[in-house]
Amino acid sequence: MAKRFIIAIDLGGTNLKCALLDNALKIKAKSIFGTKSFDNKQKLISGLIDSVNSFLLKLGISKDSVLGIGIGLPGPVDTRQGIVHFLPNIPGWKEVGLKKILEQKTGLPVFIDNDAKLMALAEHMAGSAKGYPNALCLTLGTGVGGGLIIDNSLYRGIDNAAGEIGHFPLNEHGPVCGCGSEACLEAYIGNGRIIKQARKLFGPRVTLEEVSCLAQANNRKALAFWGEVGKKLGLALSGIVNLLNLDVIVIGGGVSNAGSVLFASVRATIFMRAMSVQAKRVKILKAKLGNNAGIIGAGYLVRERLNK
Amino acid sequence: MAKRFIIAIDLGGTNLKCALLDNALKIKAKSIFGTKSFDNKQKLISGLIDSVNSFLLKLGISKDSVLGIGIGLPGPVDTRQGIVHFLPNIPGWKEVGLKKILEQKTGLPVFIDNDAKLMALAEHMAGSAKGYPNALCLTLGTGVGGGLIIDNSLYRGIDNAAGEIGHFPLNEHGPVCGCGSEACLEAYIGNGRIIKQARKLFGPRVTLEEVSCLAQANNRKALAFWGEVGKKLGLALSGIVNLLNLDVIVIGGGVSNAGSVLFASVRATIFMRAMSVQAKRVKILKAKLGNNAGIIGAGYLVRERLNK
Repeated sequence: MAKRFIIAIDLGGTNLKCALLDNALKIKAKSIFGTKSFDNKQKLISGLIDSVNSFLLKLGISKDSVLGIGIGLPGPVDTRQGIVHFLPNIPGWKEVGLKKILEQKTGLPVFIDNDAKLMALAEHMAGSAKGYPNALCLTLGTGVGGGLIIDNSLYRGIDNAAGEIGHFPLNEHGPVCGCGSEACLEAYIGNGRIIKQARKLFGPRVTLEEVSCLAQANNRKALAFWGEVGKKLGLALSGIVNLLNLDVIVIGGGVSNAGSVLFASVRATIFMRAMSVQAKRVKILKAKLGNNAGIIGAGYLVRERLNK
Repeated sequence: MAKRFIIAIDLGGTNLKCALLDNALKIKAKSIFGTKSFDNKQKLISGLIDSVNSFLLKLGISKDSVLGIGIGLPGPVDTRQGIVHFLPNIPGWKEVGLKKILEQKTGLPVFIDNDAKLMALAEHMAGSAKGYPNALCLTLGTGVGGGLIIDNSLYRGIDNAAGEIGHFPLNEHGPVCGCGSEACLEAYIGNGRIIKQARKLFGPRVTLEEVSCLAQANNRKALAFWGEVGKKLGLALSGIVNLLNLDVIVIGGGVSNAGSVLFASVRATIFMRAMSVQAKRVKILKAKLGNNAGIIGAGYLVRERLNK
């Protein structure tokens, strides 16, 4: 049987998305598994294997027709060696050779990478950053992650640790961040932080989606709320465009659905705070691939590595 | 006569350095001209031509033996087209096609670039960043300039405007910066700013060189002074190493002579504020080529362009 499918997995804090991609990286089928029970190392590994098996079984697809498995993970990854350094939400997960373990258990080639990097790869190959040589793609969610495209390639840095825009300092001193530092962008605009502020303003049960709806209906408090998030983000991006003279910044993740008020505030802040040549150059665009960016990026990862 | 020399020029706020380099980019002769009289566009252009002519005359070198002229300028430059966008200290200087003008007047190929980029090129080819694929080289002087090496090449960005680490925001709000923004790194640690603070602490006539000497003699106030400069610089560099996972940061320019107290403070701040993988990776080194980095970089620029 001709090998013509790729299994692409995007592991998040809440869901594990599993997709079957064809040779052109089009999504042929997709399933979502809860990750609540994956609360330790062994359960996560078993959970990944079970998800792949039950997904293939449901579709009636044989492993013989699968080229490989690509996985995006929410943490720092040594993509060459296939080792996950750690996962912030899984206790006891440290320096796990996930690629090797999964290859033994599935009999398929496995490639892993950090999820924000795969999102950047996908947006550059097939989304809003397509055609731009130098791009920053960022995801605004629980964390603030990023991936850099430099000269049309994903820029990794020697430890595959480049792109950590969430830990860009916004002030000399400020709120404590999960990374151990303080005043990081993520400590100001990570979901956990802004939902608390939203609940002070709009009541104890409001969701960020609701605050986005209010902003789209021109609610003043909601516009001011997202405007302030955009200012914080725009300040960090000003430092980055001054440094990198980027062609485009692509913003994705749940928070990006706040819409035009957020984007307008980011653009206005960059115009005020960045240097004129860099500010005029950079386009600020919404991510195009939405929730599928991670799995499409995982597909590109498999294709890239198998063709090398 | 065989063409075997390069004329390398480094134009600063106070001096114009003119050097004769051989094929191996070794400095064979060097002259320094004052730039005080170069206070408008026409005077600067005439001054450049006169400096080259009098330099060659003094050395008894014919233009026929010169391969080309390389010039580093303290402002934003379109290096491909040979246009200087503006020079902060020369009124009326705007979008000047300096390459073309000087080629017509001298009959020699002329190549121009931003001075901080040429310093980075020189430190990567022959100085402290040699052998490191990903490096930031910065100069601490009147301004805070920088040049980025990515994958062993000078990274310019599409407008040749990358590397502006001096305009990295350190706080949401802070001292006004010459670029029109506020709270930029340069507004905190540019020479103009720190000399004022030094004079409050050490008397109205103290020089930064003297404060460096005091620090080397373990004067407490001087150690605290440079420690604070290092903290500010280290914070900006923390954001950059999180973003770029750099191998090395090379620090040059007058302020870098403050010595070990400055470097220790930069390193300690990066360890506190940057993520662990990136902080462990990055080396913080002093520039090796000192005052000659600009002219050696101008030499590499000529060699690079003539060989293309």
